[in-house]
Amino acid sequence: MPNDTVTHSILKAKGPLLAWEEDTVVQEVPLTIHYNREEIATLLCSPSQTEELVYGFLLNEGFIRFPEDVYEIRHDPLDHLVWVEGKPCLLQKELMSKRFVSACCGKSRASFCFANDVLMVKPLTSTHSIPLQEAYAYGDFLQSHLPLFQSTGGVHSGGVGYEGEVLLTSYDIGRHNVFDKLSGSAFHSGLSLENHVIFFSGRVSSEILLKVAKMKVPILIARGAPTDLALSQATALNITVVGFAREQRLNIYTCAERIIV
Amino acid sequence: MPNDTVTHSILKAKGPLLAWEEDTVVQEVPLTIHYNREEIATLLCSPSQTEELVYGFLLNEGFIRFPEDVYEIRHDPLDHLVWVEGKPCLLQKELMSKRFVSACCGKSRASFCFANDVLMVKPLTSTHSIPLQEAYAYGDFLQSHLPLFQSTGGVHSGGVGYEGEVLLTSYDIGRHNVFDKLSGSAFHSGLSLENHVIFFSGRVSSEILLKVAKMKVPILIARGAPTDLALSQATALNITVVGFAREQRLNIYTCAERIIV
Repeated sequence: MPNDTVTHSILKAKGPLLAWEEDTVVQEVPLTIHYNREEIATLLCSPSQTEELVYGFLLNEGFIRFPEDVYEIRHDPLDHLVWVEGKPCLLQKELMSKRFVSACCGKSRASFCFANDVLMVKPLTSTHSIPLQEAYAYGDFLQSHLPLFQSTGGVHSGGVGYEGEVLLTSYDIGRHNVFDKLSGSAFHSGLSLENHVIFFSGRVSSEILLKVAKMKVPILIARGAPTDLALSQATALNITVVGFAREQRLNIYTCAERIIV
Repeated sequence: MPNDTVTHSILKAKGPLLAWEEDTVVQEVPLTIHYNREEIATLLCSPSQTEELVYGFLLNEGFIRFPEDVYEIRHDPLDHLVWVEGKPCLLQKELMSKRFVSACCGKSRASFCFANDVLMVKPLTSTHSIPLQEAYAYGDFLQSHLPLFQSTGGVHSGGVGYEGEVLLTSYDIGRHNVFDKLSGSAFHSGLSLENHVIFFSGRVSSEILLKVAKMKVPILIARGAPTDLALSQATALNITVVGFAREQRLNIYTCAERIIV
């Protein structure tokens, strides 16, 4: 199995102690697939097993039915582009118009992000910082105060905090929805999040990081791990990413100056 | 916090013992959003905080910028339909055409599923069954033999097993990609999965269940929890769903006759 990871310097906190360490972070790449010269999808994925992913995607989305329906796959691993020549697909146009109409179900919002990131996301200028103990407290809150997560393990949950107080919470089966619910809740009540913290039960991919940027929240504290793409974006957008926040431990990946010991 | 759960009878296994129990399962609903009478998206989500979700979605996708941009939200909770009247949005058409072109990034494949489920998914007829110990073994394999999951916690992983042997594995930052990689790998090598088991590190939502159905795999063993929508589909499609498979424990949610003690 290839190892789709990179090394990243992090500030590792354990109780009151902080130390720099080299840590392993998983890679995330945008893979754009063309079928018969038409761009059909951009998947955010781990870079290994690309051909398998392309075959499976085309199969599960109905573009192909048999191995011989694919004539050729060309993959440019540096630019993350794939060109597939295959059997002309009647379904294809129909699918694309359905996709156009019935749109982005569950998770397809990244296409919006891609189209709009340049317009909607800017580096944050907040100099807000929080004590390390406050960061731990949000991690503890996730574990002990969000009951649905506890009772069924079936949802992600998150919240917005300010000076140690939890102002908003949400939960959802979809990771993106947790953020949209917090965002919508703050928006509707006129709450500006520019000096706030978001905490989240899950992993931090680029799509999640961009949602945090759109919400203008300078600090994200997650129980899960970030991807390298999310960390690159966080650095560019001046967002503090904390991962693996669990029981008096956490990792600070970017913009560590916002967490004070 | 409302409790978006339903009760479901499950067969709970602990070591060699099996017992029926009432268990709590999280709900998953498809929420279709219309903006100025145009259908723009169907989100798969937990049913609570719907208005917050809609506000946050419209905001994060660039349809609205200020609370006053929304004139009215009507929500039909029985049919899971939302109609928003809001400020005419120049971005909207542009976004939709971008979405049409740059398509489904990361997760937007559900739209395909929706368009094609009727065509692509049929109830499985496999009578294949496995011993309970084999089910435990796949759960153990996930935990101990998929190294990236262990070292960084940043990816989901999965595999295909047959009679206790692991034939294929995959991992990815995206849940859907894990299944597409397995599917593409089996497809490319001409391996039919009709008497096989898929095991998976994550949660089982309806989108995951439909991928399993398309792969014609009769048994899914997951470390995470299923949603109620995934279980309804599993029952209709005659797929065995096992969840919470961890260290000599697991829950059998549907089609329990395929797991033999």
